[in-house]
Amino acid sequence: MQQYFPNKILYGGDYNPEQWSEETWREDMRLMKLAHVNMVSINIFSWTLLEPEPHKYHFEQLDRIMDMLAEHGIYADLATATASPPTWMSRLYPSMLPVTQQGVRMSHGSRQHYCPNSPDYRRKAGALVEQIATRYAKHPALKMWHLNNEYGCHTGVCYCENCAAAFRKWLQERYQTLDKVNQAWGTTFWSQHYYEWEDVLPPRATPAQTNPTQTLDYWRFMNDSLRGCYELEEEILRRTTPSIPLTTNLMVAFKPVDVFDWAKHMDIVSFDMYPTPHDGAAQVAMPHDIMRGAKGGQPHIVMEMSPSQVNWQPQTPHKRPGQLRMHIMQSIARGANGALFFQWRQSMAGAEKYHSAVVSHEGSEQNRIFKQVAQAGAELAKLASQVANTRIHAKVALLMDWQSWWSSEYQPGPSDQLRYYEQILTYYKALYARNIAVDIVSPEAELGENLGKYKLVIAPLLHMIMPGVEQKLKGFVEQGGTFLTTFFSGIVDEHEHVIPGGYPGALRELLGIYVEEFDPLTPQMSNEVVIEEGELRGRYAATRWGELVHLKGAQALARFGQDYYAQQPAITEHSYGQGKAYYVATHPEQRLVDALIKQICAQAGVEPVLSTPEGVEVTLREGEHGEKFYFVLNQSKERQQITLSEGSYTSLLDEGKVQETITIEPFDVLVLKG
Amino acid sequence: MQQYFPNKILYGGDYNPEQWSEETWREDMRLMKLAHVNMVSINIFSWTLLEPEPHKYHFEQLDRIMDMLAEHGIYADLATATASPPTWMSRLYPSMLPVTQQGVRMSHGSRQHYCPNSPDYRRKAGALVEQIATRYAKHPALKMWHLNNEYGCHTGVCYCENCAAAFRKWLQERYQTLDKVNQAWGTTFWSQHYYEWEDVLPPRATPAQTNPTQTLDYWRFMNDSLRGCYELEEEILRRTTPSIPLTTNLMVAFKPVDVFDWAKHMDIVSFDMYPTPHDGAAQVAMPHDIMRGAKGGQPHIVMEMSPSQVNWQPQTPHKRPGQLRMHIMQSIARGANGALFFQWRQSMAGAEKYHSAVVSHEGSEQNRIFKQVAQAGAELAKLASQVANTRIHAKVALLMDWQSWWSSEYQPGPSDQLRYYEQILTYYKALYARNIAVDIVSPEAELGENLGKYKLVIAPLLHMIMPGVEQKLKGFVEQGGTFLTTFFSGIVDEHEHVIPGGYPGALRELLGIYVEEFDPLTPQMSNEVVIEEGELRGRYAATRWGELVHLKGAQALARFGQDYYAQQPAITEHSYGQGKAYYVATHPEQRLVDALIKQICAQAGVEPVLSTPEGVEVTLREGEHGEKFYFVLNQSKERQQITLSEGSYTSLLDEGKVQETITIEPFDVLVLKG
Amino acid sequence: MQQYFPNKILYGGDYNPEQWSEETWREDMRLMKLAHVNMVSINIFSWTLLEPEPHKYHFEQLDRIMDMLAEHGIYADLATATASPPTWMSRLYPSMLPVTQQGVRMSHGSRQHYCPNSPDYRRKAGALVEQIATRYAKHPALKMWHLNNEYGCHTGVCYCENCAAAFRKWLQERYQTLDKVNQAWGTTFWSQHYYEWEDVLPPRATPAQTNPTQTLDYWRFMNDSLRGCYELEEEILRRTTPSIPLTTNLMVAFKPVDVFDWAKHMDIVSFDMYPTPHDGAAQVAMPHDIMRGAKGGQPHIVMEMSPSQVNWQPQTPHKRPGQLRMHIMQSIARGANGALFFQWRQSMAGAEKYHSAVVSHEGSEQNRIFKQVAQAGAELAKLASQVANTRIHAKVALLMDWQSWWSSEYQPGPSDQLRYYEQILTYYKALYARNIAVDIVSPEAELGENLGKYKLVIAPLLHMIMPGVEQKLKGFVEQGGTFLTTFFSGIVDEHEHVIPGGYPGALRELLGIYVEEFDPLTPQMSNEVVIEEGELRGRYAATRWGELVHLKGAQALARFGQDYYAQQPAITEHSYGQGKAYYVATHPEQRLVDALIKQICAQAGVEPVLSTPEGVEVTLREGEHGEKFYFVLNQSKERQQITLSEGSYTSLLDEGKVQETITIEPFDVLVLKG
Repeated sequence: MQQYFPNKILYGGDYNPEQWSEETWREDMRLMKLAHVNMVSINIFSWTLLEPEPHKYHFEQLDRIMDMLAEHGIYADLATATASPPTWMSRLYPSMLPVTQQGVRMSHGSRQHYCPNSPDYRRKAGALVEQIATRYAKHPALKMWHLNNEYGCHTGVCYCENCAAAFRKWLQERYQTLDKVNQAWGTTFWSQHYYEWEDVLPPRATPAQTNPTQTLDYWRFMNDSLRGCYELEEEILRRTTPSIPLTTNLMVAFKPVDVFDWAKHMDIVSFDMYPTPHDGAAQVAMPHDIMRGAKGGQPHIVMEMSPSQVNWQPQTPHKRPGQLRMHIMQSIARGANGALFFQWRQSMAGAEKYHSAVVSHEGSEQNRIFKQVAQAGAELAKLASQVANTRIHAKVALLMDWQSWWSSEYQPGPSDQLRYYEQILTYYKALYARNIAVDIVSPEAELGENLGKYKLVIAPLLHMIMPGVEQKLKGFVEQGGTFLTTFFSGIVDEHEHVIPGGYPGALRELLGIYVEEFDPLTPQMSNEVVIEEGELRGRYAATRWGELVHLKGAQALARFGQDYYAQQPAITEHSYGQGKAYYVATHPEQRLVDALIKQICAQAGVEPVLSTPEGVEVTLREGEHGEKFYFVLNQSKERQQITLSEGSYTSLLDEGKVQETITIEPFDVLVLKG
Repeated sequence: MQQYFPNKILYGGDYNPEQWSEETWREDMRLMKLAHVNMVSINIFSWTLLEPEPHKYHFEQLDRIMDMLAEHGIYADLATATASPPTWMSRLYPSMLPVTQQGVRMSHGSRQHYCPNSPDYRRKAGALVEQIATRYAKHPALKMWHLNNEYGCHTGVCYCENCAAAFRKWLQERYQTLDKVNQAWGTTFWSQHYYEWEDVLPPRATPAQTNPTQTLDYWRFMNDSLRGCYELEEEILRRTTPSIPLTTNLMVAFKPVDVFDWAKHMDIVSFDMYPTPHDGAAQVAMPHDIMRGAKGGQPHIVMEMSPSQVNWQPQTPHKRPGQLRMHIMQSIARGANGALFFQWRQSMAGAEKYHSAVVSHEGSEQNRIFKQVAQAGAELAKLASQVANTRIHAKVALLMDWQSWWSSEYQPGPSDQLRYYEQILTYYKALYARNIAVDIVSPEAELGENLGKYKLVIAPLLHMIMPGVEQKLKGFVEQGGTFLTTFFSGIVDEHEHVIPGGYPGALRELLGIYVEEFDPLTPQMSNEVVIEEGELRGRYAATRWGELVHLKGAQALARFGQDYYAQQPAITEHSYGQGKAYYVATHPEQRLVDALIKQICAQAGVEPVLSTPEGVEVTLREGEHGEKFYFVLNQSKERQQITLSEGSYTSLLDEGKVQETITIEPFDVLVLKG
Repeated sequence: MQQYFPNKILYGGDYNPEQWSEETWREDMRLMKLAHVNMVSINIFSWTLLEPEPHKYHFEQLDRIMDMLAEHGIYADLATATASPPTWMSRLYPSMLPVTQQGVRMSHGSRQHYCPNSPDYRRKAGALVEQIATRYAKHPALKMWHLNNEYGCHTGVCYCENCAAAFRKWLQERYQTLDKVNQAWGTTFWSQHYYEWEDVLPPRATPAQTNPTQTLDYWRFMNDSLRGCYELEEEILRRTTPSIPLTTNLMVAFKPVDVFDWAKHMDIVSFDMYPTPHDGAAQVAMPHDIMRGAKGGQPHIVMEMSPSQVNWQPQTPHKRPGQLRMHIMQSIARGANGALFFQWRQSMAGAEKYHSAVVSHEGSEQNRIFKQVAQAGAELAKLASQVANTRIHAKVALLMDWQSWWSSEYQPGPSDQLRYYEQILTYYKALYARNIAVDIVSPEAELGENLGKYKLVIAPLLHMIMPGVEQKLKGFVEQGGTFLTTFFSGIVDEHEHVIPGGYPGALRELLGIYVEEFDPLTPQMSNEVVIEEGELRGRYAATRWGELVHLKGAQALARFGQDYYAQQPAITEHSYGQGKAYYVATHPEQRLVDALIKQICAQAGVEPVLSTPEGVEVTLREGEHGEKFYFVLNQSKERQQITLSEGSYTSLLDEGKVQETITIEPFDVLVLKG
């Protein structure tokens, strides 16, 4: 098991000293020490300073910054600086600039203004990375490579001529022949047949909707195009500095980039975490379980979080007292080994000057934000040697699949009310509320070898069944696993063709049902889920989606309460091999999802880490030798009492001993070694 | 009186067999017979298959399809395949692609991506139609030509250079001289004078609003341009197959295409009918009365309706049980001789794979939708020999005028709350609620010769008075007719110049009023219509529009209740010759419109087909020899009792006899021969 | 003190006789006399008529119009006709057409379709003005020049290549070196450094937000570009007719044009006033105080107001009875010397045919609108000799600063809920409600020399502190003045760099506070302002913005009621020199702003003109020799009683005498000489 930075919890942030005098740099070093900072990300937006004119590189300033960091024992997460090309690039190579679906070519003057398929961009970016890698390969400050920045941010999809050419090449590799493209895209419909490769285009603005498989392939292609930029840098860096870990900062709920696909190329998964002011605790929690899941449970890093205000949100309230510490501690609680900020020192000018920073405009260590950061830094320092590189062990897997995301949200589709990420979140919330550890994993990457370790697999809206997935799921259930999926799942194959033989094509046998019709509801319509007996007895609101379900071996746990499929199954359970497969044919209110998942977990033998009052989040990280670290986070506004499992615990943050029943203040956090 | 398909009610749908193997075709033939299908529309989107490269035509597949249809006795409604050009067309002739008002040129890859004024498109479309017409002229399956598809759909208006050139030509034909264009467009205002033809442009994106008469002329020109594409094909087809009827599938509430203008060129009027899930029964009914009215009462065809889900609506609930049969029977009830579906077999891929079809993805005749279609097919077969080609006879005409639609919605205008189609619907609903037969006709085409047959003519929002219309209306009332019009009518002439002398210029004399001011209300404002005595006594809400009306011979039936024109007339009645002319100076609540129209109908001697409880629709189709067929449709959720006129009736669907009082189940339909 | 048109109140409107026959012109002369019209604006949109082909000028028609006006003793406000170029201009010089941020080039066919930096436009406009000026320099009708029309309307900002080139030139003049541009724009952030002038662009569409200082400089540059067009004409006209006053019609709440900057170049400030139907009386009043303030109290002119309907608003209700007279009289009451209409005679065609005019479509003097206009004209004629050129004397200045407007609304910024104009209006309303005379002035232009005349200076949201302003404000307070500013003020310098040392940088010392954090609230969040004692005691709603304020010499008048800065100051007062400085750290409900401003006025010795019941507006205009004219406007729907100061008054409109207590009818106006 690979361990980076043993006994360390990385702490620090984006550092852009180019904006200040060297005197300020020295003050920064003093303040970083006060704040327990041990790593900073540098050089992210420095291309124009490093290469002020073509092929003339200037590293003097970066040398000084690297030396200073080394001198002060602060790790450099050194960026490759390729995210924002110099203005002379777009002058010399105007086709480097991205183009929107409507055909508008973007200008420079902001940031990240490049088409990922521009040969000019790629050539110049590669040359720059080669220079940086060579120069700093042996530098003592260099501890991690930060490739580019937020790949795809602002230009997740480009429609330019470079992309059109690259798309054709990508299709040739994927399909070999145009005949197979025509077959996959279903071009017999609407007279879309292609006879010449040169006629194949990106899904640009068209009079009516574009071809759905073309659109899907374009999502795949753009994901691969962006990853191609990453791989270009990866090749150089692995060659030059084979022992330095690579990362890039991914984003949350970002449709263009398939985290599971990219994670294979990253040594450490990191991401940028910017919840909106009103996001609930579960919503903030979920990305951690994705990022940890993407690398098989290996600790991830929060590469950027905001110390307080986020300038690019519509309004920018500060994080409330306790909230920043909660965000940091929740990150560690859910498996992270690092929490870094954007940014270290607040800019006095430019587009993000109203984004908060560890060092505020005022500049002193007396500022409220700085004090919070320093305090949390001290706490992380206390935890680091014991907690770093411990692991979370989950018995539940939540399947998340970019292929289903891309295909299920195609518009016009059955419903514009469907949001893939939200459907995943709905089932995540039920697990979160019960303190049930969960890995969020990809059905393609994860299932199969690693299957044995899970008792329960949940796959909401698994619309597209990629090759092999059906067999893996069947095998999992046959051998005793419990599986749950929901409406509009199993409908299409990898080319987005409906799987014949009745819905849900690829999952009919496993689920023991036949869905005659799916019935997406308008906002004015609703239905009910009725459960006649047992703990879940009751009537529950159901919106957005109904289905006409027939039992083909399964039994009905719940039925619809209204409309033409009243009395027909709404939730089914099917014994398959030694396991069970559940199906939820609608979008029920959260209360029912919570209760259902609770019941299914109990039946599947999945235990919560700890049962707590509502609003208290508990996670468990375990060391290689069985050490247990309980993170208790009171996410509520009330003081809460928690009953621990038997035994005695050491409270690591305040170094006390606790037993059985503990009290925890609002927004407080305890870390208990037990 | 021309009769097509005597004793037949056409039943079937769009058939796109190119997507499947010939084995599936054979299964389709079997299923069509089960469903009582007698006609299918084929070849709609086949251009790219028929002409895979320039000038190389391949008809082998279409031959097989035609032969198979002939063999099974199914009529072919053969499309000309010109709606979606092959991709090589846009490569060879890029100027063929349409351009938006903002100057964005569309791409291929979707459908219907052509500018109607592209000479390349027209030349190639003509050549294709020539080929198809020649090849299938004598084919026994050929029973109707389906020209193109949904003309104007997605590209109702194009702004490209082809259009600019054609627009100048169109203007030269219309106005002869640029001086007359300047006069018509009122270019002395805002310094818009044209001295050279080449300066005249489509109303592309401009800093402020475009010239209203230019905009109006552009609507006219685009309608003519699209119709020019139709006429190009018409000429070929009439020449090649003079005895085969022509149609094209028009759309509902579609502003770019003037149904009344086009109907003159069509042998059979057909249209596509896709109500939204929450449209009321009257809203679904109205287009039938337009399509029937457009061809002087001759039966029309529903060329496309959805068997259930419509994929391109925001959400896609199924039609509820009974709803599909109701849509079919309502079509026949309101004068149609055919009901066809989009589409026969549901696509497994492509942009409309989630649009419902007669044969669902599952593929068997056991599917709920298939069973409904087959059952309705059996019922139509029962009715066909007696009902087909019977007629509806109306004593009321509702005037609908694309000229007024185009001109009254110009923005910025007096109010962005005015919707022409909705104003027509408001008065239509009052007739519908009373089971009063109505023809929806064009003031230009219809009035005059055919006038004598109506007792009441209603013309809501007849904003523009085209030449001759004033005289026709006056003549109609003089000779005893009853006429009703509403606010903002009679304001402008054919060039959209205000008719001088006080509002409502062209209608002042007829209405016996002078409107000093019209007063469009903001959404926060409202007024009241007050009626002091009589059956309509009461106070009614009035929104969107008020007027300051002076009586010049008319008398006030109702007055405004508030604001500076309180006590001034809101509804007036004027005796003119032997008839009466009514004016409604506001947009009253539906309750008042219903009551007013009921009263005026009674006074004008217009009788309902039958008086029924709310929610029961009744129509009457009459045969050449006086046979009467009453269609009774219970559009409500309750069982209803209806009292028939004296006599004895045969219930054609269940072959029973009924008398006097009958009971009808929710959503049930009876066809009574009496 | 310059006096134009002594003893005259200008009355009339835009006159576009080109649309009618000369017979109609003669009728117009008759009607103008009936309506007491003494000035009309002509030739505004006549370029295409004056110059039908390049360099061929035709003045025959304009000659006749000018002669006719002279003959009837009506003044000509002669426009330079440069607002809408002929269509041949855009054909010959296509780069003259403006371009949007997305790169769409506008077409002709509407109006004002020119880029202000087009050399072709400028050259041709200059040539035209030269012609007009020369021809009419000595014409007896010529009394005022009307330069262009509504500069910037529709194209406040253009992004074309002409603009890019001019922007670079403008930057070279402003900054001399590219290094200084880089410094000012903070281009070290996001890799935006410029090494070559040619790389500098307008802030066109970019992947993410543009640079804020670039954006700010572009606002400045576009203001200067538009003003450059003005100055081009100004130079010609001052040279040709030095004694004829110049004006151009400015607009209300129009961000692209800095009224205070432009006023320096205008002899008479005029503006177009088009309130929406639901604007309150204070909102209609405010622009007068801006326009009067822009020229040091010199009377302004309403160049355009609507007699009733405004066609380009979403809905177009008429002005209610009394409302038009109120708009006219309020204009005079607040310092105007003229009220003109758009337009004299209602167009029968074209884009504004549904805009109301003095002479309606019906055409007679019997129309309701005409009668109102004529009646108000008679009243103005009564007032003119005494009231014209009297002045309003204010003891309060409200600072309005286009620099702060441009910079505070940059998005994404701290809050998308901030609207600069609305913040000014909030404090204006408090003064308006108390009948306190106020000059709205620019902090740059006004403060300093003229400072002594004010007792109270209010500067809401004075976000940007331009050079010299800090010193002026300090000097004002030191010498006994009272100053009030609000949240997010004093934050940035002229380059939009945060002023270091803690917020509010430039105002900390004056206000005696330190703002540790500003906290923009989401719409779901709110706070309270709590005042424990005194007249204002109570709890008040506070939305949009909170702050964490520390006292550094000031004292707290009010504290926040909730959240993490509960108990911290919300409103502070600081004694500074002999004066006081107040700070309001949030956006309180209007009720508190009203009460606070009332209290501060009282303390500062600022008296209302008269204390009246709510809804009654009173202003005072004073003559050179101390004559006092009280305008009493009952803006409410109720009859009101007002107690006058002691003494006897002559009521000028009805020529009666009044004393002490008077009654005023709803929407009535009294002018009392006292």
